[in-house]
Amino acid sequence: MYEFLKGHGTENDFVVLPDPDGAVHSDLSPERVRALCDRHAGLGGDGVLRVIRTAAYSGPDAPQSEAEWFMDYRNADGSVAEMCGNGTRVFAQYLRAQGLAGDRVTIATRAGDKTLTFDGSCWTVDLGRPRLLGWSEVAVEGRSWKARHVDMGNPHAVAFLDGGVEELAALGLDRQPQYDEAVYPHGVNVELVVSTAPDRLRMRVHERGVGETRSCGTGIGAVGVAAMEADGVGGAAGEATYSVTVPGGTLTVTWTADDRVLLSGPAAIVAAGQTEL
Amino acid sequence: MYEFLKGHGTENDFVVLPDPDGAVHSDLSPERVRALCDRHAGLGGDGVLRVIRTAAYSGPDAPQSEAEWFMDYRNADGSVAEMCGNGTRVFAQYLRAQGLAGDRVTIATRAGDKTLTFDGSCWTVDLGRPRLLGWSEVAVEGRSWKARHVDMGNPHAVAFLDGGVEELAALGLDRQPQYDEAVYPHGVNVELVVSTAPDRLRMRVHERGVGETRSCGTGIGAVGVAAMEADGVGGAAGEATYSVTVPGGTLTVTWTADDRVLLSGPAAIVAAGQTEL
Repeated sequence: MYEFLKGHGTENDFVVLPDPDGAVHSDLSPERVRALCDRHAGLGGDGVLRVIRTAAYSGPDAPQSEAEWFMDYRNADGSVAEMCGNGTRVFAQYLRAQGLAGDRVTIATRAGDKTLTFDGSCWTVDLGRPRLLGWSEVAVEGRSWKARHVDMGNPHAVAFLDGGVEELAALGLDRQPQYDEAVYPHGVNVELVVSTAPDRLRMRVHERGVGETRSCGTGIGAVGVAAMEADGVGGAAGEATYSVTVPGGTLTVTWTADDRVLLSGPAAIVAAGQTEL
Repeated sequence: MYEFLKGHGTENDFVVLPDPDGAVHSDLSPERVRALCDRHAGLGGDGVLRVIRTAAYSGPDAPQSEAEWFMDYRNADGSVAEMCGNGTRVFAQYLRAQGLAGDRVTIATRAGDKTLTFDGSCWTVDLGRPRLLGWSEVAVEGRSWKARHVDMGNPHAVAFLDGGVEELAALGLDRQPQYDEAVYPHGVNVELVVSTAPDRLRMRVHERGVGETRSCGTGIGAVGVAAMEADGVGGAAGEATYSVTVPGGTLTVTWTADDRVLLSGPAAIVAAGQTEL
């Protein structure tokens, strides 16, 4: 029997496992992660956020960081993941609610330190510098589009559709979209995007190892950057902010003049308890 | 903030709300049920099992029963439901774990009293007498089949496919199957079945108000009865037992010589905690 919480950031949902000293889940196996994230036999979630002190984490991928807390993130399929933007907000919300952090906190992740700030309703996370790496193609149901390769600490393929929100809504994302495995040898998160106004986007996302999700923080950042680049704004061209609507809600992406990506959105802890899973 | 548990019977999963005196959830609205059952922003479940003393329940549909506990069941969409066979096992498992019942318990439901017995691993629930009411048609993706109308306290349409398990697996059950609204004015649970051996069946189910689920107890009972009737066994023809495999596991159905349907399967409580949903 051990403690858990359930939380979500724009309906990207997580099982939070408090494990400050690494003693509770020193053997957090892929099987247990899958059991926890099972939406019928378990608690359900897009992934697991293990909350452990950085100094207590001894894996081969232990972060080199001065941050007190390490976000040990696992996908629902049990695989280890570098980073999860929505997850950082839920992680910070948990720390703040427990009195372990204030309105500003830096957390260690497998993609480096991330600093978050809370404005009373939303958390803003600095996702760091984007890397724009080239173009490839993605395909869904036999249709293909050019896709911008944006690396946000994890890999993204951002495809802009020609049509409107109806075309986006009609796409079947039950299966893994096709992508170029030479470009993405470790898999890729695929984002499909339409523009609904000059600074507003709507998107759907297929996360590697998970499937379609209601929201993907780093994907939203990648989409914002790719759209701003296409519009000739953001970053070195001058700070810009776009709103991005995903099935789970609306967030904002700011690409600052010093080339950082800021993602703002809500986070909620909806339940806490004990489980034997 | 109030107490909840999460449990499942062959992956038909429920949010359990302890409310012995009816004081915690006297205002259990459809909105709250939907929020609890939301699989991303909530706890997730096919429905809510409110555990209330029969004497404390004062709704217009209050059961006339001597049973101490009433299973106030709600579908995930917030609608009130008469009965849920897998739910009764989870309900009984909760009562037994709390010391509120032993290995045999009778619970009140909107479809009458149900008596359950525990053999150390599985709960057997007496679902009562089936009513075989005629034939109609159901259709999925433009294909249609004759369907046996079996009432188990709630209405079922049981369709036997000609093909095998591959045909069953390939059916798209994302949408409500079509059915005869004159026969089922309050909607219907639709079961699609194939036979895999003389006394073994495999099925998928679309529950009204919910969608496809991993398991549906009364549906499994209805399928067992319809199959035994077609085979000339069970009930007045002599007690028979069939096993029925659903996506969430395998259960057994016994149709006794005195015309009662017994459903046996496991139940699990996987977590307990507090929520503000």
